[in-house]
Amino acid sequence: MVRRKASSSKGVKKPRVKLVDEVSSGRRATSYDVARLAGVSQSAVSRCLQPGASASAKMRERVSRAALELGYTPNAIARSLITRRSNLIAVLISNLTSLYYPEVLSELSAHATSHGERILLFALPHESDIDDVLDQVLQYQVDGVIAAVRLSPQQLAAIDHRRIPVVFFNRYLRDHPVNSVCCDQVDGARILVTRLHKAGHRRFGVIAGPKDSVVGEERVRATIERLQELGIKDTPVVRGGYDYESGAAGLHELIKLGKRAPQVAVCANDVMAIGCIDAARFDLGFNVPEQLSVVGFDGVGPSTWRSYQLTTIRQPIRRMAEAALMLLMDRVENPKLPPEKRVLSGQIMEGTSARLG
Amino acid sequence: MVRRKASSSKGVKKPRVKLVDEVSSGRRATSYDVARLAGVSQSAVSRCLQPGASASAKMRERVSRAALELGYTPNAIARSLITRRSNLIAVLISNLTSLYYPEVLSELSAHATSHGERILLFALPHESDIDDVLDQVLQYQVDGVIAAVRLSPQQLAAIDHRRIPVVFFNRYLRDHPVNSVCCDQVDGARILVTRLHKAGHRRFGVIAGPKDSVVGEERVRATIERLQELGIKDTPVVRGGYDYESGAAGLHELIKLGKRAPQVAVCANDVMAIGCIDAARFDLGFNVPEQLSVVGFDGVGPSTWRSYQLTTIRQPIRRMAEAALMLLMDRVENPKLPPEKRVLSGQIMEGTSARLG
Repeated sequence: MVRRKASSSKGVKKPRVKLVDEVSSGRRATSYDVARLAGVSQSAVSRCLQPGASASAKMRERVSRAALELGYTPNAIARSLITRRSNLIAVLISNLTSLYYPEVLSELSAHATSHGERILLFALPHESDIDDVLDQVLQYQVDGVIAAVRLSPQQLAAIDHRRIPVVFFNRYLRDHPVNSVCCDQVDGARILVTRLHKAGHRRFGVIAGPKDSVVGEERVRATIERLQELGIKDTPVVRGGYDYESGAAGLHELIKLGKRAPQVAVCANDVMAIGCIDAARFDLGFNVPEQLSVVGFDGVGPSTWRSYQLTTIRQPIRRMAEAALMLLMDRVENPKLPPEKRVLSGQIMEGTSARLG
Repeated sequence: MVRRKASSSKGVKKPRVKLVDEVSSGRRATSYDVARLAGVSQSAVSRCLQPGASASAKMRERVSRAALELGYTPNAIARSLITRRSNLIAVLISNLTSLYYPEVLSELSAHATSHGERILLFALPHESDIDDVLDQVLQYQVDGVIAAVRLSPQQLAAIDHRRIPVVFFNRYLRDHPVNSVCCDQVDGARILVTRLHKAGHRRFGVIAGPKDSVVGEERVRATIERLQELGIKDTPVVRGGYDYESGAAGLHELIKLGKRAPQVAVCANDVMAIGCIDAARFDLGFNVPEQLSVVGFDGVGPSTWRSYQLTTIRQPIRRMAEAALMLLMDRVENPKLPPEKRVLSGQIMEGTSARLG
């Protein structure tokens, strides 16, 4: 069929100048135009422009020159209809203006490129806005999905139904076997508490993240649990929104709650810890860490700035992104692979914002 | 042709259970499967699932139920081959881990969505890595390109050749008429210098960005020019890499260069200004702004943190993203529109990092 078309257009071969003019005047060139100009079949054009396919050097040269002249490039989209691979990965992410997610996106992008995949970006204002875009994720026939946002079992089922593999990034779905790559929230939180306790701290306060943050809730739960093991009960917990201002407000709230000011503020992420340090210094005149130890979680860029030097758990984002792409691409190749969860340990960064033992 | 196919498959109508089973067992459902299950033609399925196309409520209901059962969603990619619109916009961006670009990407994403477009992300480690991905940009038949990186005239010509409109974001190409949206670098820089001079500052130093940053070079040129107009010559300029550490190192360099320490450090972006403030305070024991005024450019999130309260020019990123999408979509609709450049004014943020007059 393809051959017939190519040879029939060869039969009514237009003069060369006419063809170049016609394509210049508005219409995008197709592989048939290239075939006509090079005087070869359309399937020969396909072969010449596909990396790895067989074609003589002379033929390649002829086709390349015609393609260049017409401004033709192979159509990745049309190819995807044949190969059933779009080489597109949907990345669902929220809060791009936080300091943590841009690093995640940057690493995912680098690793996707190394697998020959491109990122179709779904940047949501809030984690819960996923319903608005799920239809589109499905319509683009993506090879796979990396979800750095929560998905409900219903949303996951809709993607599964389309046989599109999903890997969760620092998320998972309780009671559902899913693919996921997480930083070890529990271990990280426990290590911080243990070291803070060893330094003699006994009055703790917690500034938690928003309720819908699975990892944030895990960090807080692990913190409270470890404190209880160490005999420290009734630790006050206030809630912030992961941003600078809510970290500052959180410290004020903690101080209002207790009879005595806490000796430690355990914050569910770095940006709130930074807000908390600034509130301690500028609003309350506290010395950090002498009068208040502050710890965070994430290891974002500004955590190392001289004004903060945060004591925190650095997530291994690069290795997490690498693992997420590997899990995903394995499942693109082989959809029968069972779900797998990988948990990578974070690293404690001993800054100067907390006294550790 | 379409009708014939649909009715011929109706002729050999398979029992319903068989069809659902077959589709469940691995193959992705097509619109023909939906047509078969719903007992309608394929073109009816197309009509029912396309927003705005005419179909009876009863027909829509029947088709929707069949589509749901088979896990079928319309194929945006296949549709793009017919409509010649992929609804994909390529965004070329670098330095995602800086504090400025994530905000740009987030705003571009929001405005793209409101135009019914999705973002195909090309996140480059460095601005100059564009050659590695340009081929891919062209292969995905994107509707348009937003370039927040530099393109050479040759690279731009390759995209033009494919009739894909391009809008530059805070970049342009000297001596080439291109579409671009920029913040007014010159005005912003001049206002800062004028106000600093009015406060009595006479010894200035400049921490410039990398040489390949068009906007950075513009800010520095405008700063020097305005200083000369005010009678201040021989202002020392050192070069940083837009990051925190190079801002700190830049201040040390400036101090080594001059006989007397500068009274003002004009930094080409906020993150370097933040590094500069920290170096002034923690390495040199300077009071900011009493002993050193520091100004930045951008208005990134951390510029308002209590530790810095940076005096800077805030770029109107939201309005810039909106304008970029409008310029682009206008040209997707009407490729004959002439190139247009929009220049939006930034806003001076009077923090406490500099004494202004």
